[in-house]
Amino acid sequence: MRVKVSRKAHFNAAHRLHNSAWNAEKNREVFGKCNNENGHGHNYEVIAHVTGQIDPESGYVMDMKDLKSFMVEEIEDRYDHKNLNLDVPEFASLNPTAENMVVIIWQRLRRRIDPKHELIVTLYETERNYVEYNGDE
Amino acid sequence: MRVKVSRKAHFNAAHRLHNSAWNAEKNREVFGKCNNENGHGHNYEVIAHVTGQIDPESGYVMDMKDLKSFMVEEIEDRYDHKNLNLDVPEFASLNPTAENMVVIIWQRLRRRIDPKHELIVTLYETERNYVEYNGDE
Amino acid sequence: MRVKVSRKAHFNAAHRLHNSAWNAEKNREVFGKCNNENGHGHNYEVIAHVTGQIDPESGYVMDMKDLKSFMVEEIEDRYDHKNLNLDVPEFASLNPTAENMVVIIWQRLRRRIDPKHELIVTLYETERNYVEYNGDE
Amino acid sequence: MRVKVSRKAHFNAAHRLHNSAWNAEKNREVFGKCNNENGHGHNYEVIAHVTGQIDPESGYVMDMKDLKSFMVEEIEDRYDHKNLNLDVPEFASLNPTAENMVVIIWQRLRRRIDPKHELIVTLYETERNYVEYNGDE
Amino acid sequence: MRVKVSRKAHFNAAHRLHNSAWNAEKNREVFGKCNNENGHGHNYEVIAHVTGQIDPESGYVMDMKDLKSFMVEEIEDRYDHKNLNLDVPEFASLNPTAENMVVIIWQRLRRRIDPKHELIVTLYETERNYVEYNGDE
Amino acid sequence: MRVKVSRKAHFNAAHRLHNSAWNAEKNREVFGKCNNENGHGHNYEVIAHVTGQIDPESGYVMDMKDLKSFMVEEIEDRYDHKNLNLDVPEFASLNPTAENMVVIIWQRLRRRIDPKHELIVTLYETERNYVEYNGDE
Repeated sequence: MRVKVSRKAHFNAAHRLHNSAWNAEKNREVFGKCNNENGHGHNYEVIAHVTGQIDPESGYVMDMKDLKSFMVEEIEDRYDHKNLNLDVPEFASLNPTAENMVVIIWQRLRRRIDPKHELIVTLYETERNYVEYNGDE
Repeated sequence: MRVKVSRKAHFNAAHRLHNSAWNAEKNREVFGKCNNENGHGHNYEVIAHVTGQIDPESGYVMDMKDLKSFMVEEIEDRYDHKNLNLDVPEFASLNPTAENMVVIIWQRLRRRIDPKHELIVTLYETERNYVEYNGDE
Repeated sequence: MRVKVSRKAHFNAAHRLHNSAWNAEKNREVFGKCNNENGHGHNYEVIAHVTGQIDPESGYVMDMKDLKSFMVEEIEDRYDHKNLNLDVPEFASLNPTAENMVVIIWQRLRRRIDPKHELIVTLYETERNYVEYNGDE
Repeated sequence: MRVKVSRKAHFNAAHRLHNSAWNAEKNREVFGKCNNENGHGHNYEVIAHVTGQIDPESGYVMDMKDLKSFMVEEIEDRYDHKNLNLDVPEFASLNPTAENMVVIIWQRLRRRIDPKHELIVTLYETERNYVEYNGDE
Repeated sequence: MRVKVSRKAHFNAAHRLHNSAWNAEKNREVFGKCNNENGHGHNYEVIAHVTGQIDPESGYVMDMKDLKSFMVEEIEDRYDHKNLNLDVPEFASLNPTAENMVVIIWQRLRRRIDPKHELIVTLYETERNYVEYNGDE
Repeated sequence: MRVKVSRKAHFNAAHRLHNSAWNAEKNREVFGKCNNENGHGHNYEVIAHVTGQIDPESGYVMDMKDLKSFMVEEIEDRYDHKNLNLDVPEFASLNPTAENMVVIIWQRLRRRIDPKHELIVTLYETERNYVEYNGDE
């Protein structure tokens, strides 16, 4: 039986939406108040969804303690209580929109999850705005 | 990278489930207390999910400020603080079940969203009852 | 030990804010879109908070099954899937604002709860708007 | 129009993760504190998602009162306020992991839902851990 | 300025409501399905509310990292993934109703919190049932 | 009848906990990762609770549209999508802990609310950490 198991984590971070190839006016026009020079922030919630066969011995698709550890190491330890633009290498030159963030998070978790399992990642920026990535190009 | 972006809106409306082609007994049998002659109401929550490629310049699939505006114009301005049966033309003769509502909302938003993007709409009637439509016929 | 025990119920109802002693213009000015002639509606949530001594034998302040029954009889059976203005006697001439509703609900529950217990009632009209009454005049 | 309708139920149960074919050390290693001999418990939430054509007369995919009844009979009456390992036959020899539980729940509901409808079941063990099954083998 | 600071924790536990001084019939009559012999369980949420003056240097009423540690040591380490009746000494002979539990938790935390601060504890057994204790006798 | 009416607003902001009178080591010791030099952020939720007599004509304690406007002007317009330390004058030299923030917000709203009404303000920094102020010194 193929079951999807999901685990939620969270981190609190500052960010600023900005494209350094654009001038200030264009940045303000596209990103509005999200372009505020000194940044703003969110309580992000991230859900990793892993789909695979139930192991008949353990009754697990995968050990959720492992999934939790991967999410701590790849997400919480790197992003929690950080300024994404200034403190996190992967967003030094990549605009930390929710869309770009969910792809990066998916790529980081993908390396840790058994290749036989499918992976989807959902990222909530607020309760009203969220994004999801399943590896599609 | 194809990402799904989701945005939530809400509206408070009255409605009554009723099929005028049926007699009172049949209506009561099928719709139960939802058939109450003077109506009842809900705090509806609606989520639009739009899937498409991330624009490399903005880092956006689409501008969420635009999606928010479309949802205000097509959903909130039309349904919020209204009686769906009596005040909203599309439900004058169409029974405002959650199922019919989500299809109508999907059709209205579909015209506003870039055709290259996929659209799914989720409508919560209560926290315990909700429906979803992706355009399938 | 005096403990406060709380129990949540919910009902879905239509209502219209209107003062029949005022003209249409004044009603529209004060109540805005809540004055919509054909009504609108909400998923109401109501919480009864009862404070009293823990009974040493049962370990209960009061039997929550009783509190649940009182809330079904006094609130859910009367208001759920109703139009408050048209179907409920207590709001035939009393404007069903959340404030007036919470007082009425408190009065109805007060008669059912042991006089030695304190009672507070909270009523959520939406997740963003709610009211509370403790019997103060 | 093919719409997915979803309905939530809940039950409160005790369980213990344990594989009787393993020794105590192996059980503790794999299941950690979930292997606690006297069990622990959860407020489970379960959502049944049913996808099908909207009936043009009722405006329903299926009568949600029926779906609610099926969920009471197949889930709540069987699992609520029970010890899953000791009180529920299907988990007498099957380890009640969330993964195994969601498959069993899906199988029980599947027999009650019209075969022309698709069924997905989501089971929340906690707000942070949940699983989903759609019948895939 | 006296401010109330609140911190939430959670634990998953099994329990059974039972008074060993009563016979089986009386226990079943009072506690209903909560008396199930093999127990049931909950995802408990507990909130500690501490009221005191803001320290002008730190801007804190108390260090929330300390409050978090106290809650881990006094609540989570003792109750999480346990059977309250069988694994926890304080409930060996005290019926683990939510009312009795919140008093015990308050007493345990009270010894850890600075006496100049007021303490209130809220315990959610489910989203629909919760209790609160402030030390009143 | 004296009723408490409550209204929720939200804002997304960056902040850094820091006392410029302390050295780096002391700041890191007291504020931990909240002292991160480039800041972090939150989705703040703020609830204003206003208690007063129900006006017999309107059925309102106060017009919630007014309360909403006050909260937009005094809170959302000033703090949303801002860096509290760098963009907001009141936190230029006052450490933006949740405790200090809730006092400032209370003081700003207090000037806008009718003096005959009581005011309490609750501020959620995260779902797990929140503070409340009622004007007590």
